[in-house]
Amino acid sequence: MTRWEPDSRGRLEQAALALYGERGFDDTTVAKIAERAGLTERTFFRHFADKRDVLFGGAGALQDLFVDVVRNAPPTAPPIDAAMLALDAAGALLQDRRDFARQRHAIISASTELRERELIKLATLSAAVARALRDRGVREPTASLTGEVAITLFKVGFDRWVAEPEQRTLIQLMRQSFDELKAVTASG
Amino acid sequence: MTRWEPDSRGRLEQAALALYGERGFDDTTVAKIAERAGLTERTFFRHFADKRDVLFGGAGALQDLFVDVVRNAPPTAPPIDAAMLALDAAGALLQDRRDFARQRHAIISASTELRERELIKLATLSAAVARALRDRGVREPTASLTGEVAITLFKVGFDRWVAEPEQRTLIQLMRQSFDELKAVTASG
Repeated sequence: MTRWEPDSRGRLEQAALALYGERGFDDTTVAKIAERAGLTERTFFRHFADKRDVLFGGAGALQDLFVDVVRNAPPTAPPIDAAMLALDAAGALLQDRRDFARQRHAIISASTELRERELIKLATLSAAVARALRDRGVREPTASLTGEVAITLFKVGFDRWVAEPEQRTLIQLMRQSFDELKAVTASG
Repeated sequence: MTRWEPDSRGRLEQAALALYGERGFDDTTVAKIAERAGLTERTFFRHFADKRDVLFGGAGALQDLFVDVVRNAPPTAPPIDAAMLALDAAGALLQDRRDFARQRHAIISASTELRERELIKLATLSAAVARALRDRGVREPTASLTGEVAITLFKVGFDRWVAEPEQRTLIQLMRQSFDELKAVTASG
């Protein structure tokens, strides 16, 4: 017997982020999140595996997007172009989630455990991009280097995107970071 | 009352790596390591904080080296040159530890917990390089991008260095990875 709850997932997400911000991630329980959202714990667990999943539940979809775009890039595209297409797609996916991303970033920055989890997420993304490139016939170490560059641009672009009062889009900031990366390596 | 044990640190390290390789990291105790080395647990704890420290105890010295070299690079050196000097210094420090590095790499690859710890070590190194560059007056995002590039080259070069039957030096492999990274970014 599932009662239909309008946007219960969004309400739980908002309640969770508000509580993580107010009392810290460690001191927030699922019971409190559900209470704040006016929903039951059972409803919470229909949407999220645990309280960390509110922050990291999107990682799988992001990785699938990266891999799909790299796989489906034009066969003649150089590895970095395939990776940049994936970053553009990720930027488009995330663009209207900036408020969520800002709140999430502040919460993650405040917790060693969550910062470590975020690093592991990014390293997993980098490895997935490298694997998708190898499936296109890209050799090592080019595949791994391209995966690392892509995730560096994602990370540096993302950190700028969530910093107040930044107004440029995530896509713009990742592409600008790419130009800056080229300037960095060209000077060596 | 400390009895002098000739190279007890080296013997403990060898015993630990042999046991981690044979029975896995999780199933090896400090007692077993000390026994294999013919030393006491007390001697183990004079050299290492815990059994993970045998694998990660060098991280602090490596970070200090990176930071010192970046700080002391010629004032006119571009950020990437300062970072490459740090990689050369790290390569020189590690070069005669290749057998240890190969054993260590196999052990870390076999454990999710240790792989995550290694990622965190590398991210900490990247942040330390970026901080040392900012102390030289390098602005963001150049400092962070340079730190990420340096650690990417360290990681990719290191992974090739420990792969059998690679014979080139770590310095050669990091510099070659840099040339390949430039080729990757130039094609975009």
